This record gives sequence, structure tokens and C-alpha cells, in this order.
Amino acid sequence: MSRFLSNKYEDLEPYTPGEQPKNMKKLIKLNTNENPYDPAPEVMLAINNEEIEKLRLYSDPEAAPLIEAAAGFYGVGRDMVMAGNGSDEVLAFLFMAFQQKSGRFYFPEISYSFYPVYCSVFGAEAVKVPLKEDFSIDPSDYYGVDGTIIITNPNAPTGIALALADIEEILQHNPEQLVVIDEAYVDFGAESAVSLLDKYDNLLVVQTLSKSRSLAGARVGLAISNKEIIEDLNRIKFSFNPYNLNRLSILAGTEALKDVEYFNDTRTWIIKTRETFVAQMEALGFTVLPSKANFVFATHPDMAGQTYFEKLRERQIIVRHFKDPKICEYVRITIGTPEAMDALVEATKEILEEERQDA
Amino acid sequence: MSRFLSNKYEDLEPYTPGEQPKNMKKLIKLNTNENPYDPAPEVMLAINNEEIEKLRLYSDPEAAPLIEAAAGFYGVGRDMVMAGNGSDEVLAFLFMAFQQKSGRFYFPEISYSFYPVYCSVFGAEAVKVPLKEDFSIDPSDYYGVDGTIIITNPNAPTGIALALADIEEILQHNPEQLVVIDEAYVDFGAESAVSLLDKYDNLLVVQTLSKSRSLAGARVGLAISNKEIIEDLNRIKFSFNPYNLNRLSILAGTEALKDVEYFNDTRTWIIKTRETFVAQMEALGFTVLPSKANFVFATHPDMAGQTYFEKLRERQIIVRHFKDPKICEYVRITIGTPEAMDALVEATKEILEEERQDA
Repeated sequence: MSRFLSNKYEDLEPYTPGEQPKNMKKLIKLNTNENPYDPAPEVMLAINNEEIEKLRLYSDPEAAPLIEAAAGFYGVGRDMVMAGNGSDEVLAFLFMAFQQKSGRFYFPEISYSFYPVYCSVFGAEAVKVPLKEDFSIDPSDYYGVDGTIIITNPNAPTGIALALADIEEILQHNPEQLVVIDEAYVDFGAESAVSLLDKYDNLLVVQTLSKSRSLAGARVGLAISNKEIIEDLNRIKFSFNPYNLNRLSILAGTEALKDVEYFNDTRTWIIKTRETFVAQMEALGFTVLPSKANFVFATHPDMAGQTYFEKLRERQIIVRHFKDPKICEYVRITIGTPEAMDALVEATKEILEEERQDA
Repeated sequence: MSRFLSNKYEDLEPYTPGEQPKNMKKLIKLNTNENPYDPAPEVMLAINNEEIEKLRLYSDPEAAPLIEAAAGFYGVGRDMVMAGNGSDEVLAFLFMAFQQKSGRFYFPEISYSFYPVYCSVFGAEAVKVPLKEDFSIDPSDYYGVDGTIIITNPNAPTGIALALADIEEILQHNPEQLVVIDEAYVDFGAESAVSLLDKYDNLLVVQTLSKSRSLAGARVGLAISNKEIIEDLNRIKFSFNPYNLNRLSILAGTEALKDVEYFNDTRTWIIKTRETFVAQMEALGFTVLPSKANFVFATHPDMAGQTYFEKLRERQIIVRHFKDPKICEYVRITIGTPEAMDALVEATKEILEEERQDA
């Protein structure tokens, strides 16, 4: 720390991204919920030499084609969409913009581990609401609170989805609070709250093209809400980084949003792969939380989460393990190709056999 | 404005980016200081189909190859460089990080018009230090101040450079304050303060690949400083948007930094074009401030700045005009290709002739 850093950041603990190994060959990477399928074919065609040459010119600060494609896909007005440099930037902007007088943000105790970091960096108070015993969210815990609510749906790293009716209850019980639904994983089986935007003016939906559109490396996130809330987010964006999306990511995102068939095909394959995989893991004695995401959260009664994580890693398979005592017996496994999941299942059989022999 | 927006942003006035016209054909665009030459040839080769397919994977949050290329080019350690989503994001992070107890940032009254916006969004006080009569900076105005100093060198929109010796004086007279030198335009004839990093631990240099590396649309900026200050900036980055650079911009930036010959060729062409252009404009009666940037700031005694701006625009030539009364008689003209500058000179002759007839 330099002597120039503002005092308020002395205790700031930054977010730790999932590992991005650089020197592991033949790696099976199931740790950061990336999509195993390439981006839509039109993405490849759109990023041609002419567009690369145009990198000498600034990108469109309005990201107009992307906003139009997103508005078209979700059936909302163009003034109801804002684009960020990944949904992480959208989240950062909204934590900046929508800190209420109480200074509080309410979110599940187990959720995206970046939320408390945003609270910390913007001097807000993180109110971590416990989950139920089965790791699901109790909507009534969020009724009548005095700050902005943010719920990942489906939740991460559990994968458990909240029904639209439950979200509606939370919205109705907080007419004077903003309710943010972070739908990073919604396309793998949950219901989007975008359909509620007509009815509730206190709803903000956050989405990303990282997962269901195979564009994690392009960094494109979306905020979808009413015109006034989008104006607020743009006010922050244009006071922070107006050209926040580069030219090629605007192109990639636009094409990915337009190719609805490819989007539906790939997410359907991932859902099918997940269902097969869950059945295989349950047959091996795992408890797998009911997932509507492109990952599952699994634990085995005879094996510590840390052990399973390490033994997979020895076999060049990386998944994500969290040290938090509430979830440290689980590992989060991204749904990859059927081949990747079969390899993981085979490795898991070996590991279980080893554990049995050691016991 | 929604009822959820934090009160502190009620009076926030966002930055206004230079116009990006979408429907003007045969446009000569000299308004946002873009480079008229394509990015380095290796940039085109690096962004191939294999890399576009890899967009399904997250980018490297450390942006390691880019940091390595920048460290190599500037002859500094890898722990002395941090990369941002454009230098605007680097600036945003540093305005967040380095707000001193006084809450003040000192910068020239006429400079990058984003600085006061950053102050506003982060609740800091902007202390605007007047320029001298000739639009140059008086270094002694910055001696012994009580806040972070930020100086664009060469300054924008004037193009006037500060000598390294003057920057050194400012550093020496503020050992307990951070001095930021924003070198967006330094490669077009000014001296970089990177060479002073060994001697002063209160120096932070900001650069961009937008101008001299023809990558405005890729959004790559750099912070170069000592290890502790870079750690501070990374602490903010990893608490705001860890994956702030997308995969293709990391690639593009890396290749652009490696191709030193192309960089030197193109910036030399632009400097030569500027010198020829300045002579032509002076011959037409313009006063042109002495520029070390890829733009010039010019005024004519017989023609209002606004008039000149509008009449160029009628001829499909766009330059930048600022409404601030201190500089409203000037226009800022980006240095494009020799052909573009010739077209502007010809148009200017016509406009001056029209003005003479109207007078």
C-alpha cells in the first residue's frame, strides 16, 4: 500500500477471481462456469479484417447495435437497456448509484462473493441474509427492508432458482426499495424477471453474455429496467467510462443476441448434459443441490470438499471450492461438454475408490 | 432520474464524448484525436478465428501478456504496470484511490474536461488552476499544494507540452502528494515522465493505446508507477471489475506494443503532417498553439470559432469546438492523413473567402 491510498480502502479485500491456469496441459476446466461451446457462428464472421482495422476509431459510447439487439431479444424499449463491460461493471455501477439513505444492501449470505466487496469499496453496509437449511432463499426474509435488495437467480454457487411468484412478493413488499435480480445463469432453466418490468418500477434485471452466449472473454453485461433507472446507470457510466465497451465486443454481443437458434440449441444441450451428470453423481452417492444453472453444487458424505477438489486437480480437472465453513464440504462443478463430464465422473469413481481404501 | 438514485448524484453532470456521427457519408473525422493509420499489422494477424472462438473463456484478469509487453517497451518491472479499459478507466480508478484528506485534486483550468466529472462522481473537490496568458502551465502554481495533482502532458486541448524539468520541479515541491502525468498524447513530440520513476516515488504516469497505437476502439490504457501505487490501483480494480480487459483487446494491445517500428513510423508521419499543416494554417492567418500532440488548437482573428466549426461541418469535416468562453474562439483539429489535412485547408480557404465577402 502506498502512502497516497485513501484511508477508506485500508481494509478493502478485493474479489478473488476463479483460477485461470496457464501451464496445465490437457486441462478440463470446470471452475468458472464458462460455456463449453464456441460463440455463435455469426460472431466469427462479424469480427473480420475490416472491423479489426477500425479499432483505430473509438467505439460507440451508446453501443447502439448491441442495445438494439438486446431490446429486440427481450421485447423491451431501447431506453430500457444499458450495456456494461461485463455484468461485473453493471453491478459496480448499480452499487454506486443505488445506495439508499440506510447505506444497506441486502443479499443472501451465500451468493456471488463479489457483492460484499462492492459494499466495501463504496462504503455501504452488506446485510447478509441467511439461507434456509436446504440452501434455498426464504422470500419473506426480504419483506419490508430498508435498503437495496440484490438476489442472484438462480443463486450461485447453489444453482437453486427462486420462482417468479416469490420475486413478485419481494417486489410488492418493497415498493420504495430497488430490487435487483442478477440473472447471470437464468437461461439454463430459471424464469427471467424481465416479464415483470411492466408491472414493477422498482425492478432492475442484470444479465450477462458470458455464460449462455459463450462470450465470457468479450465482457458484455446488460442492465434491463425502466427508462429512469437506465438513465441513472448511464449517468454513472458517462461519469466513469463512457466508452466502456470496445468495438469488437459490441459486434460479438450484437451477433450473439441475434442468433436465437444457436442460443437455444447450446443452452438446451447444457441443460441435458446437466441432468445426465446429476443422475450419475447421485448414483455415486453425491448430494447435488437442484440446479437451474450451468453448474452444480455437490457434496459426498464420505469425502471432504477440499479433498475432492484437490484430487480432481491432480487429475487435471479443476472445479471451484470455497473455504467458507457453511459450504466447504461442497464443490461447484461447471457443466461442460458430455465428454468433459464423463471424464469427471470416471475420475470421481477412481477418487472414491482411493478414499474407500484409505478409510 | 429514478427515486432510487443516491442523493449525491443529483447534480452530477456526466462527460460529453466527442460526436460519433453515424450517417454522414464521405466524412472527414478530425474531432476525437483518432489515429488515421490502421493498427499494427500484427494486430490483424493475432485476432484470428481460434482467438475469436476462445471468447467463450474468461480473459486473464492480470492481462499478463499486455503487462509484459508494456513493461518491456517502457523498460520497467512488470509490477510497475497496470492496464485499464481505456485510460478513462485508469483515471476513474485513480480518482477513487488517491483522494487525499483535503479531498482536493489540482489540475489546469483548461485540460481534459473529464477531470472535474471524476471529482464530482467521487465527491472530491476540483481545484482548477488557471493557465498563463499563452495557455501554458506555470509549474510554480502547483508547488506545495494539499491534494493530488493531475497534469495532461502535452495538455489538451491546447497541445502545449511541459518540459520534463518543470514536471520534476512539481514532483520535488510536493514530496507528500501524488503527481499524475496523463500522457495520452506524449508520443507525438513530448517527453515521457516514465524516466523519472526511478527518482520519485510520488509519480504516476497514465498512458493510452488509443492515439499513438491506433487502438481507440480496443480500449486499452496503462498506469505506470512504483510497485506500491500499482498495487493500490489493482486493489481498486479487483474490487470493481477484475476482468476489465477483454481477450481481444489484450491481444491487440500486446501486439501493438511489440511493433516498435510501426509505432515509430506512424507517429513520425503524424508529426510531419502536423508541421506541414501548421505552416499552411499560419499562412492563412491562423494562430496555432505550439502543439506536441496529434491535434492542434487554432483560431482566426476574422472568424468566430463556432462559425468555423459549423462551416467545416457543412462540408463534412468535423473538428471539436468547446463552448467555454476562454477557448470558444478556438477549434481543436486532429491530425489525420496528409490528404485529410489538405481537404481541410482547401475548405478553410473557401470559408475564409465566404467570410470576407460577408464582412
